[in-house]
Amino acid sequence: MAEEPLTYSVAGVDIDSAQRSLRNVQSDIAASHGPQVLGGVGGFGGLFDARFEGYDRPVLVSSIDGVGTKTKVAQMVDDYRGLGADIVNHCVNDILCQGARPLFFMDYFGCSRLEGNAFTQVVSGAAKACAEAGCALIGGETAEMPGVYLDGEIDVVGSIVGVVDYEKRLPRGVVKPGDELIGLASDGLHTNGFSLARKALFDVGHRSARDVMEDGPGSTIAEELLRPHRCYANAVLTVLDEFPGISAVAHITGGGLYDNLPRVLPPNIQATIDRRTWTPLPIFKLIQSCGGIEDAEMFRVFNMGIGLVLVVDRDVSAGVVQRLQQLGEHAAVIGATRVGASDVQIV
Amino acid sequence: MAEEPLTYSVAGVDIDSAQRSLRNVQSDIAASHGPQVLGGVGGFGGLFDARFEGYDRPVLVSSIDGVGTKTKVAQMVDDYRGLGADIVNHCVNDILCQGARPLFFMDYFGCSRLEGNAFTQVVSGAAKACAEAGCALIGGETAEMPGVYLDGEIDVVGSIVGVVDYEKRLPRGVVKPGDELIGLASDGLHTNGFSLARKALFDVGHRSARDVMEDGPGSTIAEELLRPHRCYANAVLTVLDEFPGISAVAHITGGGLYDNLPRVLPPNIQATIDRRTWTPLPIFKLIQSCGGIEDAEMFRVFNMGIGLVLVVDRDVSAGVVQRLQQLGEHAAVIGATRVGASDVQIV
Repeated sequence: MAEEPLTYSVAGVDIDSAQRSLRNVQSDIAASHGPQVLGGVGGFGGLFDARFEGYDRPVLVSSIDGVGTKTKVAQMVDDYRGLGADIVNHCVNDILCQGARPLFFMDYFGCSRLEGNAFTQVVSGAAKACAEAGCALIGGETAEMPGVYLDGEIDVVGSIVGVVDYEKRLPRGVVKPGDELIGLASDGLHTNGFSLARKALFDVGHRSARDVMEDGPGSTIAEELLRPHRCYANAVLTVLDEFPGISAVAHITGGGLYDNLPRVLPPNIQATIDRRTWTPLPIFKLIQSCGGIEDAEMFRVFNMGIGLVLVVDRDVSAGVVQRLQQLGEHAAVIGATRVGASDVQIV
Repeated sequence: MAEEPLTYSVAGVDIDSAQRSLRNVQSDIAASHGPQVLGGVGGFGGLFDARFEGYDRPVLVSSIDGVGTKTKVAQMVDDYRGLGADIVNHCVNDILCQGARPLFFMDYFGCSRLEGNAFTQVVSGAAKACAEAGCALIGGETAEMPGVYLDGEIDVVGSIVGVVDYEKRLPRGVVKPGDELIGLASDGLHTNGFSLARKALFDVGHRSARDVMEDGPGSTIAEELLRPHRCYANAVLTVLDEFPGISAVAHITGGGLYDNLPRVLPPNIQATIDRRTWTPLPIFKLIQSCGGIEDAEMFRVFNMGIGLVLVVDRDVSAGVVQRLQQLGEHAAVIGATRVGASDVQIV
């Protein structure tokens, strides 16, 4: 028998603290809600109107993802502000590869103990990123799991549901030899490759997260690593509407160009990428030099500066690039397709 | 500079191992897919037909959840077979509180290192539970995060989307004084209260997970703790169709009857629960005696043997109980509503 009665709080779980933290972010969450969200926050499930007027044959497209060990860099400098946008935009870009417009998002925040700013910064950031992408944050879960997570560590997970008209889903039309590949610049590592980046920079290279980058505009290594995942939805949904010649979109996440481009290529089509068409951000060069990492491994783990690739008929590619630039994206033709094995040659 | 080139695998992440593990569960995942699932596994997002024929005004209902530190009990005895059903059925029961039929589910498996049987058992179990609930497993994510998760630890998260016709959503009609509360038996702790249960049983009570329960049918403490979350959807969706007098459904999760029943009660309605109407399972008594936990705390943390509560007009409650029993549920009237503060009195 215990000497004093055991309670949930003594066992390491503080329900009241979780509810207090949630109140801090309620207004940000509510601001992401449009008229399709039915009912308020706090029910057993979030409600979303599914009439989809204007769609001939609506198809839901969904994805679930995490931000990986980017959380450890956030913890190093106690700055969790970007992780919410990271998980939302990662998910938004995933379903963009099927041409889907985001509808709603749910977050999961796992931690050893719910304390400090991490929860509020992550969920507030997620709610704001949802609002910018026209997506409603309609649910979430917080779990305190001492003994599962290392002290002070967190995991950030999210799931998204979007919609696309069946006839407009991607890939659409035919990816054929001679199509051009338009690369959209990433803002940094986004949410992939952090285990290797941390090992290279901090363990092997003995750099500190707060070191100022030699080769950058005065920012620290942590600031470069923590730049949030860029959201491509607003620009890319616009060009998908305006240009019929866009046949496929690939989100460059874990596995890099090598693993992600073939996911949208037919079996007989090879992609060739010309590395000289863009300059990777300085953070990638620093990781590579600290870790002595080979080129092929860099391109297999990191996006290397290209966050999204569009496969486009060559007749419209110049127009698509120009329009993407008008919409605020750094975009360029970075390669082309040809007959060959369904793989990627980076030359 | 590193002496040997650094790779992702050396940094602790093995992409090939993740892909091998996924192949082991592909057939279970495919078996959960009905004709509404469009396209195969492996795209950037899962596709689900959203025409919802037969619905006047379809509303999507969604939820995200985790299984909490039940994972630690699974790890103690190296038995992860129930955790997949746990997360699926937790999510299915959540959206059942709005009357929703499950459509599709996505899983997230976070771990320190992807090894052994845990991943395969969890995802295979989730796929089978999805198939039983008429729900498609259409996406998932696996994350190896050494340095975030303690060695050998895992987190299991899932998100679900279901559909309900707007006019049939719950709560429906009016919860009024004199309604009866029908409790459906749980199969154990389900997925809540494991931090307190582990503390009471193992830290304070010095029991072992493999100890045989004194008060049970020969099963061990671990077996009782690991019984999967029961799925109430098939039975409850049937009675919701057959009986117009069911006004609300509450899923008894974290916070127990005290926190979960008020979520479906109007401000002026109090619930009174008569404890003598059911006998909590032996595992709850063992936890309470080991931890010297007060009654009120037990009812605030655990479901105490009641997994779901239906609020039902008294004219139909006998019929609903009988029908639920025909459908394989242990169901009984456990209390009633009356005018009062929106809280729960357990007497």
